[in-house]
Amino acid sequence: MVPHWIIEKKRDGAELSEKELRFFINGYTTGDIPDYQMSAMAMAIYFQGMSLDETASLTQVMMHSGDVVDTSSLAIPTVDKHSTGGVGDKVSLILAPLAACCGVAVPMISGRGLGITGGTLDKLESIPGYRTNLSELEFIEVLRTCGCSIIGQTETLAPADKKLYALRDVTATVPSIPLIVASIMSKKLAEGIDSLVLDVKWGKGAFMKSKDDAHELARTLVEVGRRMGKRMGALITDMNQPLGKTAGNALEVIEAVECLSGRGPDDLMEVTMALSANMLLLSGCCETHVDALDMLHRKIESGEALDRFRKMVSLQGGDVSAVDDYERFAQASIVQDVLAPEGGYIGGVDANHIGRACGVLGAGRQKTDDVIDVAVGISNLAKVGDRVNQGDVIATLHANHDEALKAAMEHLVCAFSITEKDEGAIPLIDKSIL
Amino acid sequence: MVPHWIIEKKRDGAELSEKELRFFINGYTTGDIPDYQMSAMAMAIYFQGMSLDETASLTQVMMHSGDVVDTSSLAIPTVDKHSTGGVGDKVSLILAPLAACCGVAVPMISGRGLGITGGTLDKLESIPGYRTNLSELEFIEVLRTCGCSIIGQTETLAPADKKLYALRDVTATVPSIPLIVASIMSKKLAEGIDSLVLDVKWGKGAFMKSKDDAHELARTLVEVGRRMGKRMGALITDMNQPLGKTAGNALEVIEAVECLSGRGPDDLMEVTMALSANMLLLSGCCETHVDALDMLHRKIESGEALDRFRKMVSLQGGDVSAVDDYERFAQASIVQDVLAPEGGYIGGVDANHIGRACGVLGAGRQKTDDVIDVAVGISNLAKVGDRVNQGDVIATLHANHDEALKAAMEHLVCAFSITEKDEGAIPLIDKSIL
Repeated sequence: MVPHWIIEKKRDGAELSEKELRFFINGYTTGDIPDYQMSAMAMAIYFQGMSLDETASLTQVMMHSGDVVDTSSLAIPTVDKHSTGGVGDKVSLILAPLAACCGVAVPMISGRGLGITGGTLDKLESIPGYRTNLSELEFIEVLRTCGCSIIGQTETLAPADKKLYALRDVTATVPSIPLIVASIMSKKLAEGIDSLVLDVKWGKGAFMKSKDDAHELARTLVEVGRRMGKRMGALITDMNQPLGKTAGNALEVIEAVECLSGRGPDDLMEVTMALSANMLLLSGCCETHVDALDMLHRKIESGEALDRFRKMVSLQGGDVSAVDDYERFAQASIVQDVLAPEGGYIGGVDANHIGRACGVLGAGRQKTDDVIDVAVGISNLAKVGDRVNQGDVIATLHANHDEALKAAMEHLVCAFSITEKDEGAIPLIDKSIL
Repeated sequence: MVPHWIIEKKRDGAELSEKELRFFINGYTTGDIPDYQMSAMAMAIYFQGMSLDETASLTQVMMHSGDVVDTSSLAIPTVDKHSTGGVGDKVSLILAPLAACCGVAVPMISGRGLGITGGTLDKLESIPGYRTNLSELEFIEVLRTCGCSIIGQTETLAPADKKLYALRDVTATVPSIPLIVASIMSKKLAEGIDSLVLDVKWGKGAFMKSKDDAHELARTLVEVGRRMGKRMGALITDMNQPLGKTAGNALEVIEAVECLSGRGPDDLMEVTMALSANMLLLSGCCETHVDALDMLHRKIESGEALDRFRKMVSLQGGDVSAVDDYERFAQASIVQDVLAPEGGYIGGVDANHIGRACGVLGAGRQKTDDVIDVAVGISNLAKVGDRVNQGDVIATLHANHDEALKAAMEHLVCAFSITEKDEGAIPLIDKSIL
């Protein structure tokens, strides 16, 4: 096989065989096929798309470019959740220990974020001592002991994706459904899971701006997963306003602990419970959605879920006392409230502006080697539909520099709209495609 | 400016500014922009195309990626011809000295070929001693002395094109009109010419298989050249059957000498005269096409054109005696006639099969570092419309290996079709867009 003939075939809109994709992706992984041929191929895929069969083959090949975690020794159902990401999305931190209490194993290999705030790994690293770089053996050991573990991508996991993701980022080939799907699914399925639940977000603070695009991505992810023999579920959720009342790193971990303690905000709990219930249904732990929700609520009320989180943190080297004493997290030197300029109802909280504010505060990265400030961010975020009087606190900024505070404040001013009447929020969960 | 934002802009179908193209191409030439971004950009251009303004800007930027030959000291009009290439196309060898006799300078910087036969440079190098690698100073000196010079691309001439051309070859981004146009025109206009005549070929032995595609390419080439302040002309010519009666390297030089001596085959002379006349009209040397043809015919009849060829060969170090004694060219060890299997009229001579036969004989390259055998090829090619009896010679193969001869013969058998009635040939020159 000749690499540029395979590029030509895709360029002309033909379907590539699994054999051709294996040749191309494996060649790219070993370096036999150079970056410049892969980027031309990625651009051809951007324009011509891929059939579901092709996307499944691409995913399969990328997944097998490295190791697949052997979870067979756990002897219980393995299930994970993947979110396409959004502002204030700390669901993984709550859902992993919560689902683990119900009798499934959650081998979660997560990422870091660019832009708005850090990713799940960055958030967890705001817990002093928490290690995200476990070996595969340590990972399995934590899973065996407490049923959940959240770590970073290892060197041997889907190396084709690691290489291709970096290349797509600088060649304008990120927004391609088959490439997105293969990237997400190759990494997730390399965790050795039986089932996967997807949280595909749409709106101002999400990668997919329209609900239709989110549906298309969700359908493709679910179909590809099923073709690979996995039980799949997906929710389409709203990301026009941030999820929960905090955005940042340490601030989000604190909010997650609040949720696990039964004091979480409604929207965040609704999404977390729906996704967790889906995981239990897919794994066969519960028969009905009502049963699943019931079990999940009991695990929070009994304190079991929070204990499971403590156990995971401890097993991964983190300072468990931070869970009970939030002062142990890094604190921002400047804390300033944002006040409502007039009375009325919160009509909108633009997740994009909130995300940018977090970015300028230093909660996220602009380049992969930037250092994140885990202390900064936003708390006390008002929610759409909240009744406010003039001068009420609608957000609290946590900053470490005056200039960053000023720049973040400019975004905050644009983020909130206040209306005379309560116009109601967009439904949080749009539609389940289980 | 950020390279991947410029790729994104093109990917989304927007028009790139000259500033953006300059940044991108200059960055690519110096190596600041890597191959993988250039190949993604080339694929985006393949799918989205480019406006005439964009193509002209791209050409301008690629042309100025290196030196432009300073022909101002010649003080006569400078004009060249470019052909998109075909089987048996030795027009440049005849046209350059012929036009030079009429008072124009022809600073021809030519290429080598892949596949079928060598390019103009390879053909000229079959003349013992002929040097194609003159310095710019030597080039100008030959032009000053005899009005024409044919050399190879120097290191400093359109280096962006040199790099991009090699990249396109291995990333399935060759057949893109704006990229083809920028490649051709950046090199040709770097010759420092006032006018350019194009021979855009279509048919079985050409890059453009359909006449419509050839027209589109010709129109774009002419428009881009005009936007760059050049006088432009173009002919669309047939390349379904080979041009002239020979294909190879030494064999084609011999045929060119025959043409310059007034003994050339009709089709080859028709195209050469039409293109040369166009050059004289564009340069203002003649007022009408009839005047131009008249002048050209006289230059051949008087022997002046052949003398000019001798002079160029001599100035570039070639053995002039080869012009009068064809035995001085390398000779193939096996010469074998191909006979008509039945009587009738030649209905078709498939230029693609003739080209492939030359390729297997060793007249062309499969890889850039292959060594060409200048002695091999095909002569005595029958032309469409020729009346033949069974057993008449319809071609003569010149080979240096029995196996190559056998493989070439298989192509020859497929190349010729013989019909009962004379169905006439496709008009050689389709339409002039001057």
